[in-house]
This record gives sequence, C-alpha cells and structure tokens, in this order.
Amino acid sequence: MRYSVDGTWRTSASGSTCEALNPSKANAPANRFQACTTSEVDEVFAKAREAQRTWQRTPLHARAALLHRAATLMRENAGEMAEALVLEVAKGAKDARVEVERSADLIDYTAEEGVRLLGEGKLLMSDSFPGNDRTKLCMASKVPVGIILCIPPFNYPVNLCVSKIAPALIAGNTVVVKPPTQGCTATLHMIQCFLKAGFPAGTVQAVTGRGGEIGDYLTTHPEVNAISFTGGETGIRVAQKAGMVALQTELGGKDACIVLPDADLDLAAKSIVKGGFSYSGQRCTAVKLVAVFEEVADELLSKVNAQIAKMTVGQPEDDATITAVVSKSSADFIQSLVVDAESKGARLCQEWRREDNLIWPLLIDNVTHDMKICWEEPFGPVLPVVRVKSDAEALELVNKSRFGLQGCVFTKDIDRAIQMADAMETGTVQINGPPARGPDHFPFQGVKDSGIGSQGITNSINVMTKVKSTVINLSKPSYTVA
Amino acid sequence: MRYSVDGTWRTSASGSTCEALNPSKANAPANRFQACTTSEVDEVFAKAREAQRTWQRTPLHARAALLHRAATLMRENAGEMAEALVLEVAKGAKDARVEVERSADLIDYTAEEGVRLLGEGKLLMSDSFPGNDRTKLCMASKVPVGIILCIPPFNYPVNLCVSKIAPALIAGNTVVVKPPTQGCTATLHMIQCFLKAGFPAGTVQAVTGRGGEIGDYLTTHPEVNAISFTGGETGIRVAQKAGMVALQTELGGKDACIVLPDADLDLAAKSIVKGGFSYSGQRCTAVKLVAVFEEVADELLSKVNAQIAKMTVGQPEDDATITAVVSKSSADFIQSLVVDAESKGARLCQEWRREDNLIWPLLIDNVTHDMKICWEEPFGPVLPVVRVKSDAEALELVNKSRFGLQGCVFTKDIDRAIQMADAMETGTVQINGPPARGPDHFPFQGVKDSGIGSQGITNSINVMTKVKSTVINLSKPSYTVA
Amino acid sequence: MRYSVDGTWRTSASGSTCEALNPSKANAPANRFQACTTSEVDEVFAKAREAQRTWQRTPLHARAALLHRAATLMRENAGEMAEALVLEVAKGAKDARVEVERSADLIDYTAEEGVRLLGEGKLLMSDSFPGNDRTKLCMASKVPVGIILCIPPFNYPVNLCVSKIAPALIAGNTVVVKPPTQGCTATLHMIQCFLKAGFPAGTVQAVTGRGGEIGDYLTTHPEVNAISFTGGETGIRVAQKAGMVALQTELGGKDACIVLPDADLDLAAKSIVKGGFSYSGQRCTAVKLVAVFEEVADELLSKVNAQIAKMTVGQPEDDATITAVVSKSSADFIQSLVVDAESKGARLCQEWRREDNLIWPLLIDNVTHDMKICWEEPFGPVLPVVRVKSDAEALELVNKSRFGLQGCVFTKDIDRAIQMADAMETGTVQINGPPARGPDHFPFQGVKDSGIGSQGITNSINVMTKVKSTVINLSKPSYTVA
Amino acid sequence: MRYSVDGTWRTSASGSTCEALNPSKANAPANRFQACTTSEVDEVFAKAREAQRTWQRTPLHARAALLHRAATLMRENAGEMAEALVLEVAKGAKDARVEVERSADLIDYTAEEGVRLLGEGKLLMSDSFPGNDRTKLCMASKVPVGIILCIPPFNYPVNLCVSKIAPALIAGNTVVVKPPTQGCTATLHMIQCFLKAGFPAGTVQAVTGRGGEIGDYLTTHPEVNAISFTGGETGIRVAQKAGMVALQTELGGKDACIVLPDADLDLAAKSIVKGGFSYSGQRCTAVKLVAVFEEVADELLSKVNAQIAKMTVGQPEDDATITAVVSKSSADFIQSLVVDAESKGARLCQEWRREDNLIWPLLIDNVTHDMKICWEEPFGPVLPVVRVKSDAEALELVNKSRFGLQGCVFTKDIDRAIQMADAMETGTVQINGPPARGPDHFPFQGVKDSGIGSQGITNSINVMTKVKSTVINLSKPSYTVA
Repeated sequence: MRYSVDGTWRTSASGSTCEALNPSKANAPANRFQACTTSEVDEVFAKAREAQRTWQRTPLHARAALLHRAATLMRENAGEMAEALVLEVAKGAKDARVEVERSADLIDYTAEEGVRLLGEGKLLMSDSFPGNDRTKLCMASKVPVGIILCIPPFNYPVNLCVSKIAPALIAGNTVVVKPPTQGCTATLHMIQCFLKAGFPAGTVQAVTGRGGEIGDYLTTHPEVNAISFTGGETGIRVAQKAGMVALQTELGGKDACIVLPDADLDLAAKSIVKGGFSYSGQRCTAVKLVAVFEEVADELLSKVNAQIAKMTVGQPEDDATITAVVSKSSADFIQSLVVDAESKGARLCQEWRREDNLIWPLLIDNVTHDMKICWEEPFGPVLPVVRVKSDAEALELVNKSRFGLQGCVFTKDIDRAIQMADAMETGTVQINGPPARGPDHFPFQGVKDSGIGSQGITNSINVMTKVKSTVINLSKPSYTVA
Repeated sequence: MRYSVDGTWRTSASGSTCEALNPSKANAPANRFQACTTSEVDEVFAKAREAQRTWQRTPLHARAALLHRAATLMRENAGEMAEALVLEVAKGAKDARVEVERSADLIDYTAEEGVRLLGEGKLLMSDSFPGNDRTKLCMASKVPVGIILCIPPFNYPVNLCVSKIAPALIAGNTVVVKPPTQGCTATLHMIQCFLKAGFPAGTVQAVTGRGGEIGDYLTTHPEVNAISFTGGETGIRVAQKAGMVALQTELGGKDACIVLPDADLDLAAKSIVKGGFSYSGQRCTAVKLVAVFEEVADELLSKVNAQIAKMTVGQPEDDATITAVVSKSSADFIQSLVVDAESKGARLCQEWRREDNLIWPLLIDNVTHDMKICWEEPFGPVLPVVRVKSDAEALELVNKSRFGLQGCVFTKDIDRAIQMADAMETGTVQINGPPARGPDHFPFQGVKDSGIGSQGITNSINVMTKVKSTVINLSKPSYTVA
Repeated sequence: MRYSVDGTWRTSASGSTCEALNPSKANAPANRFQACTTSEVDEVFAKAREAQRTWQRTPLHARAALLHRAATLMRENAGEMAEALVLEVAKGAKDARVEVERSADLIDYTAEEGVRLLGEGKLLMSDSFPGNDRTKLCMASKVPVGIILCIPPFNYPVNLCVSKIAPALIAGNTVVVKPPTQGCTATLHMIQCFLKAGFPAGTVQAVTGRGGEIGDYLTTHPEVNAISFTGGETGIRVAQKAGMVALQTELGGKDACIVLPDADLDLAAKSIVKGGFSYSGQRCTAVKLVAVFEEVADELLSKVNAQIAKMTVGQPEDDATITAVVSKSSADFIQSLVVDAESKGARLCQEWRREDNLIWPLLIDNVTHDMKICWEEPFGPVLPVVRVKSDAEALELVNKSRFGLQGCVFTKDIDRAIQMADAMETGTVQINGPPARGPDHFPFQGVKDSGIGSQGITNSINVMTKVKSTVINLSKPSYTVA
Repeated sequence: MRYSVDGTWRTSASGSTCEALNPSKANAPANRFQACTTSEVDEVFAKAREAQRTWQRTPLHARAALLHRAATLMRENAGEMAEALVLEVAKGAKDARVEVERSADLIDYTAEEGVRLLGEGKLLMSDSFPGNDRTKLCMASKVPVGIILCIPPFNYPVNLCVSKIAPALIAGNTVVVKPPTQGCTATLHMIQCFLKAGFPAGTVQAVTGRGGEIGDYLTTHPEVNAISFTGGETGIRVAQKAGMVALQTELGGKDACIVLPDADLDLAAKSIVKGGFSYSGQRCTAVKLVAVFEEVADELLSKVNAQIAKMTVGQPEDDATITAVVSKSSADFIQSLVVDAESKGARLCQEWRREDNLIWPLLIDNVTHDMKICWEEPFGPVLPVVRVKSDAEALELVNKSRFGLQGCVFTKDIDRAIQMADAMETGTVQINGPPARGPDHFPFQGVKDSGIGSQGITNSINVMTKVKSTVINLSKPSYTVA
C-alpha cells in the first residue's frame, strides 16, 4: 500500500517496503507498505505546515462538519477496515467492526466537544490582583499547537489513531500519522475516509516505514509541535529524545484488580474474565494482575476458571474469544513469563498450551513478588493471581509497580472503596468494574511509566492546544455594569 | 437599638419600636428596635442606589480587602454578638460563638471566591455556530444586579445574614438588611463590624420594624433588584409578590434520615441525635423525620434514646444541649403536633415535658402518614420515627413531602447509597452523615416548598450577579494563532 | 387546528376557537385554533408530569438523538412552517424559511450542548474550607426542574419556541407550549416535527386559547416549575404573579445605536438600516433609537435615508423589505407615536404613509426627550433619531430607558468603545455592529424591564435545571493521590 | 551560605563553594554558596519524596494557611532580601523591595487559587456518550505530581522562585530549588521564610552549586516529577534531556513593539521606554525590538530619545534607572551586538558608553534583518528599531523570530488591533501597553523557543498537578433527580 502525502497516495522513492504478517496463519505475509525516506518525511512535514496555516483559519463549525462527514464514511466503510484488522492483528471479526464504529462515535463527539472548547476562552480582569485597577482585559483562548505527530499502536490501530487525529484536527492542527506495521492497512483505510470527507490536502497525512529507520527522525523532527504516542517502552525513549514539544504518551500498564472479602464475587469474576482475556489480553487496560483476599480467593478463582473453561480459542474470523497474539516474539515473551513463574512455585490453573502465536487462556495462582509476571505485562491471555491478607498489602502491591494506568477495587463498602481508590497510585481506579478506556469522554491517563498527559476527548484537545492571550490595555479604569 | 442608614445609626421618626423577648426567661422583654417608616425605607434604598454606582466601580481586590477587615472585626467582637444570641434566641453560649467565628471564615472565603468569579468572564467566538465566520468576539462577564434585600431568620441571624451580604458585596451590590426581631441585636452588631471595616456609607444598611408593617413594602419595593430570604412560609408569599427580581429563598424543610438494614447503626444514631436535637431542632437542616427499616428499628432507637437520656436541658448560658424554643407560639405548635401524634397511636419514647418555651427532647416512634408530625416541621426537639419495609416505601415517604431541602441515607452499600440518593427529591442527599448546610462552599438548595435558587458561597454570588455581554464585531474574520 | 396533548392532536371540549388574522390582507381571517378549557390544561400538565418522570431517566445521548431527528424533520418540513409565517405574521417568504432553518441549527447545537452541561457536574472536597478535613465529597450536578411552560411571541413563533423547548428537553424536562395566536400554525407544525421525531407522549404538548382566558391559569398553575416567556408587558405581570418557579423572561427593548464622530458611517448606516427595518422593525433586537453625534448626524442620516429610499414595501410573499405590521392595534399605536413626535417638533425624513397594517419606513430626526417615541418601542418600521453632543449625553439617554436589552456603539477607538460598552446599562452591547440575538450560543439577556434571566443556548439550559448535591461522608479523611 | 535540606541548613561535604559577584563593583566577590555533591542531591530528593507523601494528605485550608504565613514573613523580611538583590544582581533598591512585596501578594493569591482548583473536580456521567447508559460516575480531580524541581533565573530570583514553589506547594507537591548563583542569597532568604512559616521538613529545600556540575544531574534525576525552569538557552537542553516529566519552561524572548501610524505616540514612547529599559532591559518581557511605521518613526523616536536623555545611570543603591548588567560576559555580548549593528549601517541614537558592566542606554535606529541585534536578545539597555511600511511587514518581522513570548501593538483602531494581535505568533499580545508578566493571575506563556507550558498562577497550578479519576460502576442505571 502507498503512503499519504498532500492529499494523494504515493509510492516511496526508496523502492523499499516493510511487511505486516498474519498472526493467525503462522505469521504468513499479509500486506506490504512503503518504507518512506527521510526526505519524504520532510516533504510531508512541509505540506503539513503549509496546510496548517490555512486550516487554523477555518471556521470551527466547518471543521466540525468535515469530521462528521469522516465519521459517516467510517461507518460506511467499516467492513474493509474490520477485515484488515482480522488479517493483520487477529482481532475477532465482530470486535473489529465495533472498533470502527466506536471510532466513528468518537469522531462525532470530538467534533462537538472541540467546537465548544476552542470556541470559548476566558476573559480576565486586572483588578482581581492587589495593586491593579481595572485597566487590563485579558482575553485568553486556546489555539492550535501546529503539527501533531500521531503514533498509534497495533492493537487498536483505528481507534487509537482516531482518538489522536480527531482532537488534533478540530483544534486546528494538522496531523502526520505513523501507523504501526501490524494494523497499518486499517489505519490507512481510515485515513482515506478523512481524505474522502474533504479534509484539505496536507491536513491528514501518513508516512510508513520501519520504526528503527525513521522513528527517531520523526519524533525529533523540528517541525513537530506535539507527539501523541500510544505503545510500549518506546514511548519512554520518545519522551527522552523529544525537545520542547507537547507530549501525550500512553505506554504500558499492569492494571490490578483488587478483590476484597465483601465483594460481589460473581461481578468480580465476570470483570476479571472480561478485563483479562478480551482480545487475548492485548489491551492497555487489560486486567494484568489479580490481588484477591485469601478468604475469598478459592471461590473467586473457581468462578473465573469456570468461565475460562467456556472460552473459544481459534480464528478471529470465527470470533473466537482467544486468538493468536500479534507476533512470535510476543508469544515467546509470554511463554518465558509462564516458565519463570512456574519454576518459582506458581500454580497453573490450566494446562499451558501454545500453537505458533496462539496461546490458550491461563490463570496463574499463588504468584509471588519474586516472579517476573508479578511486575511485567504479558500482553497475552495469561493472568497472574496474588493472594493478599490486607488492604495495605494489596495497596503496596499496586503502588510498587512501575506502571500506573488503571486499577480496580471490588467491594460493596462505599467507605472502603473510596479509601482504596484514593490511595491507589494509578491514573484511574474503577470501583466495581473492570479497567476501561471508555466512555471516551472520560479522562484517561497513566502515571509513572504508564505515560504522561491525560487523554479522553476533552483532555486530548487540551493537550493539542496552547494558550494565547490578548490583553487590552485601557487608558483609564473601566468597570462593566448593567 | 437604632437602625443603620447611610453609614450612621439613627432613631426612627416613627417614635415606635418593636421588641425582642428572652425565650429562656418566660419571654421577658430583652431589647427594643426602631419601627422604621416607609419613607425611611425609601431613603435607605435611595442611599443604597447611590452607593451602588460607586461601589460597583471599586477594584475587586479592594472590595475583598474590606471584607477581610470585616471578618477580622467579627472575630474581635465575637463576644457581644454571642451574648446577644444567647439572650434573644437562647442559643448555647459556645454555639453562639461558633456561629460568629464560622461567619468570619465565610466572609474570608467569599471575598476570595468573588475575586475569582467576578474577575473572570467568558470569551466566545462566533464561528462555533453554523453559518458564522469568526467576526464576532463576545466578552461575557458577571456584573452586580444592584441592590439586594437580605432577610435572615432568627435561628442564625449572624451566619445567615453574612451568607447573604458577603456574596452581595463582593459582587458589587449594596445590601439592605431586614433583621428578624428575635436575633436583631446580633445582626446589628454584625453590621457594625462592616461599617467599622470601612465599607462606604450606603453599601450596608439595616432597617428594622414589624414584618407585618414593612415586610411587603420592602419585598415589593421598586428599588430592589434581588431578594435573599431565609425563613418559613413567608418566603412563599415573598416569591408570589415579587416581580422581575432575582430570588433566592430557603424556606422550610423536613429532612428525613433513611436508615437501611446494613447501616452502621452507631453512626446513624449519632447523626440522628446530632442532626435532630442540636440547637433544640431549630435548624433548617435538622433531621425532622427518621425512616428506619423495621428489622433494625429497635436497635437504632435504643441507641438514640440512650443518647437522649444523657442530654442536658436548661439555660443557653450553661450550654445546655436543649434550650427554650424561640417563642411561646412555637412551643404551642410543637405541643399540638405531639398531642395529635399521640392521639393517633404514636408512641412517645420519652415523657412529654414542657416548661414555658422549654421542651424536653422527645423521640416519637410508630409515626404514621395520618399524623401531622409526619409532614409538618416542628422546629423543636421532637423527632418522629416512621418504620418502613423497603427502599421504595422510604423513598415514597421522602418524596411525598412538600419540602425538599436535604435527606440522608445510611447504608454501607455503595450501589444502594447512590441509587437512593439519586432518587430522593431533595436539594441535597447526605450519604452516611446528617444534613448539613456546610462546609459553606458546598452548594446548598431546597426544591419544592423548600426554596428556589441555590446557595453556598459560589452559587450565592452567581444569584447576585447577572450576565453582561460585549460583542466586538470585526470587519473581516480573524483567527487567533500563536 | 387542534391542540396537542399526550402525543395526539385533539379538539377542545369547549367547542370554542380563537382566530389568527392575515395582517397583509386587511386582517382577513386566516386560521382557527382550539380555545382549551382549564380542565384540558390540567390534563396536559398531568401528562407532562407523568412523562417527565420517565424522560428524566432517559440517557442523555438518546435525548440528543431525538432532538437531532427533530431538527432534520424541521428542515424537511420547512416549507409548511414558512408558509404559515407568511400568512399569519407577514414575514417575508425567504426570512420565514431562514427562521425555520436557523431553528433546526439551534436544536442540533442545543442537543450537543446539553449532553455536555448535563453530563458534567462538580466534585467538591470539604477540606477547602477552614475547619474541615477531607471527609466529605460533594457531587453536585444539574437536574431538570420538571415542567417548563413555554410562551413564545408572534414575531418568531418557531425560533423563539424552539429556543425554549430544545434546552428544556435535553435537560430532562417536559414542556407545555402556549403559542401566540398570530403565528400559532407555524408553532403547531413545529411541534408536530418533535412528535414525529419520536419524543414520548407527554414530553411536548401545546395548549391554545385566548391569553385573556387561560393566560393566568397557565402561568400560575401549580404544576409549572419554570416559565420561559418572550413577549411584551404581559411578561411583567407573569413575573409578579408567579410563585417559586424559575423565570426566564424577555420583554421589550429600546435598543439604541450610538454613533460617535469617528465611526465608520457606512458601516453604521448599514447596521441602522438592517437593525431598524428588518422584518419591519418587529424584532426584540431591532434598533429602536439612534443617538448620533451632531457633527456627523447629517452625513449619517443622508446615508440611512438613501437606503430607505431603496426599500420595497409590500407583500411578504414577494419578500418585500417592509410588510404589514402584525395587527391594526399595533399600526394604530405606531401612528400615535409618529403624530406625537411630529406635533412636538420632530422632523419626518420621509412622508408618513400607511395602508391598513402596512406602514412605509420612516426615519424621524430631531427627536427630543419629551416625545413618547424617545422611550416607547414602536415595533414597526419607524425609527427615531436623537442628536447628542457627548458620550455622557448618549449614555444618559440609553441608561434612562426603562428597558435594557441591547445597545450598540459605533466608533473605531478601542478605548472609547470599551468604556462606552462598559457603561451602557443593557444586557449586551454591540461594538460596531447592530443588535443581534445570535449567534445563538452567545448569552442573550435584558436588564430592567427587558427581562430576567439569561438566554442563549447554554444559559437557557442552566435556567431550566437546578442543582442537586450528593455528599459522601467518609469515616476518616481520605486524600486522592496518584 | 548553607543549603537547605530537610528543614535545616547545612554545609556541603564537598568542602567546595561557588561565588556570586557584585556586578556594580567591577564584579568583586559578594557571597559564597555550597557546591553540593550528587549524594547530597540524592538525599534532598529522598527527603522530598518522604515529605510529599504526608504533605499531599494535608487539608487544603491548612496548606493555604502556611502559605499565607510565609507571605507575611516575606513582607516582614523584605529588607534583607532586597539588600541581597541590590548586591548580587544590581537591582535598584526600590524595585528590589517591590519584587519581594509583589511575591508576597503572589503567594497569598496562589494559596486561595489552589484551595479552589484542587478542591474542585469534575463529575462525569457515562450516558453522555452514545451506547452508554448512566451506570458509571467518573470523579476526576487534580492531584499533585510529586516533586517539582524549581530553577529560577538571576533577574527575579525571589519572584520567579515564588511563582514556582507557591503553586507547587498548594497543590501538594514538595519542591527542590536550584537558585541561580547571582541572586542566590535572596532566594535562600526567601526559602527561610517558608521554613519559619512552618512548612514541614522536606517540603521546601534548596541545593546550590555550579550548574555545569549538578545541573544535568538535577534535571534528569529519576525522582523529579516536574521541572519549572526560567532562564535562557539552557532550558532547551533541559527539555531535550528530560524524560516523562511535566515541563514548564520560560526561556528567551524578543518582544516586539509594533507602532502603527494612528497610535498614541506618547503612550507608545512611554511604554517602549518602560518596557525596554526597566532594570536595564534584563527582563524576559522587556521590549527587545521596536517596529515602527516609517511615517511616525521620527516623531516616536524623538519622544523615546527625550526620555532616554533623562535616565539616571549608576548604582542600584541610588535607584538609578540604569545599573550594571549582571556579568562581564553579558556586557561583552551586548557590546558585540552593537558593534555588529553599527558596522552594518545602523544608527546609534546615543553615544555608545560602557564602564565595566555598566552600559549607558542606547536606542539603535535603522536596524535591518541582517543585523544580529534584530534577532538576538541583548538582555541589556540597548534597543533596536526597525522601520516598517505595512502591517504585513511588521507581522513578518515578529513571526520570523525563533522566540514568541510577548508582543505589543499600538493603535487606536479596535479592528486593526485585534487583527494584528490574532496574527502575532507569541504567547501574549499587549494592545496599547508594554509587555508584562502580570498581573500574576493572567496566563503567561511563550511559544517556539520561548518556552513550553503556560504560567500565571492558575496555569502553573495546573501544570503541577495531574488528573486522577475514580469511576463508580453501578449495578444498574441511576439518574439523579430532584
């Protein structure tokens, strides 16, 4: 497939390509993409800059109208994006379609949110501050930052791209997208919807290529004004290398699910299963650790295991619950975590089973602090359980993690629920529910190594704008009356 | 005592006075106040108007500085206000001092809140709306409404006056206070603090007299721009007679305390006792009805009764828990409710006892819907208990009331607590706590016959301001960039 | 035509009707409407109450979806509404269609605004206030007030009805509309769009009849929770009679246009003509007074008169600039103002001419303070001009008016523009532009006899909601960290 | 002087010191400070982390009370801080005192602002978003980021330190300050006020030493959660080296003053002189370029030169207008810019004169794009003037700069003023006034190489907090009603 520059699709002068594989078919070749050169990258940024000057002077309602049009086209073309997701990232067919549809809703909501956030500033008066009369009126509003580099991950290459470019665009920025290799096709189809919707040339572009080759070139490019990155450890390096640009990164997570003795265990089990095994655990907000009180551990695990037993394992086209993980290296890593845990005394609740990238769902009981799986995120259908004896012990486990995306606490007790939630060092705590990115207008953020900046529609728009003030200095004090 | 006009204290030309009695001493005469004439009222409003034109053009930080100075003077002069409260409204000596000190805190907080609320407006752009280009900038800010008529009640004649005049003043309004007869002295002392603080003549004034004589004259006065009233049924008539003025009324309440079977009964009992009997039940936010589930009713009541048994009954100077209610007519009314309830089968948990205005604390069990005390507010140390069998029955009881100030629900269950709170038709619901006006920056409001408009510091300032917009029309579209 | 109750259209049991006349055809009969009885009114309110209980528990996005559907139907059915406007209120055919289309835009915008305003509350912590630890979390949100009585005026019976019912509905209220007699048909067609869109029975209803018969019955009905009224003097009586209900009234105006010596006179003349004569001056925000500096008066008036000379006068079907005013009594009143002014020495810039309700456009120069037309609003194509000598004189003229809707100031000078705007006692001041209600998301409000409460989409939603707080009391302090 | 660790003052184990010189006395030695070691830095951070865990759990009102106490102590100890400023940074004696007093006001304002910003979160409901019922309540609030590294510059070592630590502290963070070498004494005196006010050990600490030795160690320290830096080019390197930490940098500026032909030239001249030469031009927001229209250039410059002629040049103790610049290297750099400009044809309006660090005020006319002084900031009393012919030319000059802090436009024309302000690519534009950081509650920010993040009290608090969400998941939909 070609890359997108200045409203057109083009083949790279490099003559070189990179390749997405099919995780469900023993990583057989799936699709090929252009390996863009640095000068092609330069051109893309130049076009983005030029387009931005005009785009930022387009009426807000007109920007919104284009986004609504793109959302409509997304719904109309959901099929081809969904198929690409099945093929390249082994996402279940139904889930793949849901991803696209939810993305269209996100675009619509973002358009209307931006109309309001960008269309309203603050008016500040000087006489609030000691020593000043009312001779200065400050009009502060949000203005675009310029060009946003958007780097979505393989697991939601449509949704997590849209959640970057829609806020960027409504705010008057232009975007340069670097799609993941696995999932690239769906991202490019999505971009096509924006182009067909009528976004001006240069406002939405995509460069493809190997991260190792053009990654640093992109993230340190002088024309970049903000970076919105979702992914893994790479994000930390992006932050370290970036200069004075706005940063929004969402990296790893180790979302824990704390189950207190008074919890509704059916609800907790259901949430753990849904949270831990949906899309084979390859979600930022997957449940990646269960911390259950000893006295209810057996009952809880028995409920969880009963549900695991019913899961289907197989092909995404058949909507199997568990499908192949994205790559051989990912499967190998998961396996290494399981081996390590078992060797240190953990109990596998199911038999370990793997075929190529396909790993059967596994609950691991009696996990202890010395096992790697207690701290690393497997990003697969493998879920460790730590038995705890107190609120303090559960909190210590959660807060020792170098990640801090989300956490959950299951308890009926309103007081204890809030005390625990307040004390958990994560961006979000779910009381009586699994971790969840959505609804998409909720704030969404990680702390520590889980990221920087907040997401969610409103917060993303804010990250992608800066403040501009205009102060009217008056010749003598003036007070507004009516 | 004299009334306050244009920065001075003056005797009425009427030659007539009205009198506050001492509730604790068989209603013996306590203090006398001027019975102002309608032309004196006219003069006060004329001065208020004149002063307002200048006051609204005073820098916000300077307005705030005066309020801080008044707060300091309130603390320094707390003694004389507290004594007046003991004398005229039989408030316990310590509580009386607390009322003054809490009022000083409220003034300080209000000053700083107003500096921010009044010092910040909105800047709106035209291109948010379809069909418009960015040719109009709308600067919308809050401006004072003008003159605020403030009518506090007898039970908190300092605090509930300060909660009206502090927001009014910081917002650039001037105030005319009509103190209650019982409690008038403390209100006037408080106003003296504002005058000594340096508020310009005409910004803070107080007219005294019989409500029956000048009440309607005041509330329908053409110079009034807003009325802030706290009191009883009179408030409904105020609302009906008032024309196009901003209205903030807080009238009666029948705050119910719902105790679910899983509640912490010690906490519930403690809250009921504190909520029901503090200041002898003469609080807007007193617990005025207990709705307890049958299965825990006996245990709860036994805990409540144990605490009632320990209450001291007597003189406010001695800080007795229970002191005389404000007037003979109030005591008679309370007695009539008890008689009615007993005659219809209610069970008195304590012996009925009354000496003049002093009524011993009383819990009334087995109250049913046909008894007046189920629906009327006694405003005394008498608390009815209805036994219920379901959430729905408890909700029906609360929602059938013509009042809707606050309500409480005691339960540990987070889910049930929120479902119940959401369904209660009251301005506020307290989960696991007694009704409470404060902290004073929380919103505070009644629905149905409990009032209109919201209070709390921020909301009061909002009620006492109106919106003024200034639209800059540009010759051609202009987009803010940076 | 029938009235709307509980999702159906019904004939009144009264057997009586009232009649709209055709202003353009010598007030010949146009359409007939039901004269509803008080018991029919009662039924309508009973249905509204019942419907409200369910409607307020409908997801926000679902409420918004219904509003978007209604907007679409408005656009599809614009023709029949426009025709009714031409027939009953003599609105030019093109303008009539614009009114409907702008109304559809307003509905769409309101839906999305409400999703945000209602979907977001405040979370307040107790430890902001001295003396409190962090043991209370206050969740304050906006909840519907209940039933809104909506009374639009004849001049924009679609747009000014939609601007009431759309905010009411998105906020979870139900509405009872009392259409004006002239303009009733268009209002009823509009309501039909809402019913066809799928709004549940009882959420949107309309009662018709003579204001003199059911007006007070409606406005003082105990089931009314808020009144949104646009019209004339009647609104003051509505405010005086109403009890504890939320009030939003927009009544008369006397919008002045101040033209300073340095103004762009072409721009000023264009704005005066557009502002003063559009829809024959029958707009709340029509320019109703010109205050021009003597030194530029002749030049300004010559420009204005040149444009008046080009106006077409005639039938709304032909899109004449000037069409018949709404009634014979209105035309008579306008004539009386002209006669009074001329008798006191004003100079008519054009010949006075009237045929039935049709009045030729007229600029009246040399108007002085003793003439009625200096203070009354003609609501017709007749525009008085006062010549002034200073900023202070212009301000005095504006601020002496008992009205305070909008005002304009024309000057290039940024300092003087803001000083003047700040000092004008009107709800809005336009700098270098004519008075304007829109864009519809801007705040819109009158002061003094021009109304109470603020409009504009956001403010209208706020008026139609109240605050509900839920306070979670914790057993011990808890601090949120991450 | 000693450095501050854990509430005490300590001598470094390094045995080494660094030295501040006296710019006014030929850079004679002034004061000596500890050259802290990296392990001392580690200890400081360890104490800061420990203290932060407790400090973030201190009631907001208690945090505010401590800040108010510090402000009072600042005022009481203004003398010693002012003297240190005179000595080390050659600030005029009166200005030095003003810096301290303004800093105290800033602390007070910040305390109250933080009470409100931190004490209020958002409550979001799930049903705003398509596909969701109201089953999730999201409570989002602001929580501290942790430890803030504060690096103030030499020119306002008190004020620009306070503007970092006050917001940090009220938000529940702890701070580690790295004072500048010149100005260090005043910063340390200021920190002493915080310690004496009662801030807990570890909340406010200061490490001293050579930037070249411990600078990178500090800015890349793993315990740092946010960096607030004000200074020069170093800030860019700080941004490039920092990882996932919140960043607020304010670096260089090249604030231009555009004077249009219709400007009030007296006002413009006064603003240019005040803006360009106050504190000898050593201010971030000094006017660093004048862009004047050819037709008014001579008149403007003649007014400016007349005022320059009256300036006093000399010692800070005598409050001379112009005092020595901070260092010899700074004076050398300024001289090099003047030499370059003169050699390329610029006209010096005054004779070039320098004695040690003392440079006489100089206006340089006819500056062209090829001269360094057109683009570099001299940070001294030397001001270049470019003559322009059009709005576009003036805008191009401003927008070509790699800096974007503030800019000014002088014109009476409201339309042109806003069009120009909107188009200038700077963080703030002043219409008819000189660049200004304050009033301190206004937003203050640079774009491009002038910095990242916004300052001003509110924005600084926001930068120093992050979002934490707690989502209550309900078992079934619940709608809040009243």
